Amino acid sequence: MRIYKKAILPLGFKANAVACGIKKKGKLDLALFYSDRPALASCQFTSNKIKAAPLKLNKEYLKSAKSFRAIVANSGNANCFTGRAGLTDAQAVSAQAAKSLGVETKGVLAASTGIIGKRLPASKIKTAMPVLANGLSSAGIDKAKKAILTTDTFTKEVTVKFNAAGKTVTICGIAKGAGMIAPDMATMLCFIFTDALISPGALRQALKQAVAGSFNCITVDGCMSTNDSVMMLANGASGNTLIGAQGGSFGIFCAALNKACLELAKAVVRDGEGATKFIAVTVAKAKDYDEARKVALSIANSNLFKTAIYGRNPNFGRIIAAAGASGVGIREENLKLRVSALEKREISVYLELKRGRARATVYTSDLTPEYVKINAEYN
Amino acid sequence: MRIYKKAILPLGFKANAVACGIKKKGKLDLALFYSDRPALASCQFTSNKIKAAPLKLNKEYLKSAKSFRAIVANSGNANCFTGRAGLTDAQAVSAQAAKSLGVETKGVLAASTGIIGKRLPASKIKTAMPVLANGLSSAGIDKAKKAILTTDTFTKEVTVKFNAAGKTVTICGIAKGAGMIAPDMATMLCFIFTDALISPGALRQALKQAVAGSFNCITVDGCMSTNDSVMMLANGASGNTLIGAQGGSFGIFCAALNKACLELAKAVVRDGEGATKFIAVTVAKAKDYDEARKVALSIANSNLFKTAIYGRNPNFGRIIAAAGASGVGIREENLKLRVSALEKREISVYLELKRGRARATVYTSDLTPEYVKINAEYN
Repeated sequence: MRIYKKAILPLGFKANAVACGIKKKGKLDLALFYSDRPALASCQFTSNKIKAAPLKLNKEYLKSAKSFRAIVANSGNANCFTGRAGLTDAQAVSAQAAKSLGVETKGVLAASTGIIGKRLPASKIKTAMPVLANGLSSAGIDKAKKAILTTDTFTKEVTVKFNAAGKTVTICGIAKGAGMIAPDMATMLCFIFTDALISPGALRQALKQAVAGSFNCITVDGCMSTNDSVMMLANGASGNTLIGAQGGSFGIFCAALNKACLELAKAVVRDGEGATKFIAVTVAKAKDYDEARKVALSIANSNLFKTAIYGRNPNFGRIIAAAGASGVGIREENLKLRVSALEKREISVYLELKRGRARATVYTSDLTPEYVKINAEYN
Repeated sequence: MRIYKKAILPLGFKANAVACGIKKKGKLDLALFYSDRPALASCQFTSNKIKAAPLKLNKEYLKSAKSFRAIVANSGNANCFTGRAGLTDAQAVSAQAAKSLGVETKGVLAASTGIIGKRLPASKIKTAMPVLANGLSSAGIDKAKKAILTTDTFTKEVTVKFNAAGKTVTICGIAKGAGMIAPDMATMLCFIFTDALISPGALRQALKQAVAGSFNCITVDGCMSTNDSVMMLANGASGNTLIGAQGGSFGIFCAALNKACLELAKAVVRDGEGATKFIAVTVAKAKDYDEARKVALSIANSNLFKTAIYGRNPNFGRIIAAAGASGVGIREENLKLRVSALEKREISVYLELKRGRARATVYTSDLTPEYVKINAEYN
């Protein structure tokens, strides 16, 4: 398995991006991802009860269509809390992309990120679509990965290549998000493309476990987004033998996808709004994984813990208190805590519960005055 | 019912405070509250699984003793995560207070607030005890209310007087806390004294509902304390007819206690660490109270909402997103949202769910760079 810290599109995929005028100053704000042949799609969306319009559209298309050809994504506007008009806008964008590409409307998925509650300027997007579609290329991913960003300070990209019974399979992912979970600006979007030939069930299972161990284990501010989406297309262009849900190359496919997702998830945390520290919180000797993750998230979401790390303040009582607030029946006398040197840029926190053998690691950033400043001013 | 924004001890109660050397610079850090006759006690403690030593001690005493004479409280040290030694220290402090007062050890409850994980300097406290006990007076509450503070910028105090069948009953409360829930410094402590004659069941019931509607409806940073305690003594000195759990003066007693608790709870939020705004979040037309409170707390604990209020940023999508993240099955098209002018010092947020008739109000403060600064530096 080879890992590249750069987006390299798999066989059969192309991308492009333009500045269509949603963002100011001519910044890239509209991206298109295209597969030259029908691809399977698997998606994981936010569990927030308020879902952005493109997520509603995607759910409909994912039910009714069997294969997909493209994803159109804009930044600068989340198209959320926009009611029926928002759904109409998302549909219009998808339909225009389909028209420009000469494919079926239901084969074009959509994603948006940016401010909540403002109408999407769909006409700007529609006007830009023919040029966007016309300029598709495999090198276009370098523009596309920039066009999906909002408050991000760098692009998040990864490529993993592995051998599946003699054929090279590529998994390429890009992401945006400077808070995993930040309702109206740092909504996390991730697009993953692979040329693997894989069964729908195997793809769904692989993505679900990869997301559980990566994007669902990061937190910047504990705020759940209305737009969070991980969207994956698999087009089979590598010519590998079909990967099923067990045996064959399924194991290595999962390992490669896990690696890709974890790299992207960690990059989101590293770019956490105002962050000066990258923190890994590991909870070990828990009864089961869920319990370990619950305690780790309770620590990682504690504002007091996060400000202490920012201040290089060895106030470890806050870690214990946050663990106790998780609701898990831990006992003071059984806890073992280790924290790495606070001067480092990367901090590790390790807490043993002495309740069992399970462990979980959650990644987060510190809470800084800059975080407050960014979010007090953003609109 | 008359309300005074000042602590006036009820009949039969005395208090005092000294600087025993836990805090630096000769600041008051040790308070004693005393009833000249046996009093009933009712307490509500944190639900954090990690509980400070004095809470463990109190639970033991509350089980084995029927009446109580005093509460000894220190600031500057939480006596939490201090293991068996911490419990021994708390016992020693209680025993020394009992000795100085000439009462039974199990009749003296204890409270601590301050940093977690450092051993309580019990010998300093024991040395100071005779002088502390000797100086008890009804005016001593003015020193005692200061001695329990940590990062607080002002004292929290209230007195409510009402007529119970011809007798004047007084309820007096003082509190400390600059975050409702802040594991190692702004642990919330509240002491309430009344000269009402009331049955144990009625007292328990009255306090439980008063705390539910006040201290359990405030949040500064969503961090749950290991030391949170509301401790109430009722000594019957007013000479009123016994108040039972229904009828008679129970209604007015509850109303007065609710008022006292709500005033103190709001004062804690107003003094929220680094706060520039006082925010009331009301969720209405919910199915039931629990659901309304859950949505309101989800909004009140959202860092993004709190930074927006700090920045006077009308980014109301954050309110909707936080409501959606609560897990309650709200529907975008049914929501009605009103927010008061953001320039004000007191902000009200009103959200209707169109799911039923219940409502709840939660109080919180904004999240500011000053909050981060205070907590990055505190140890």
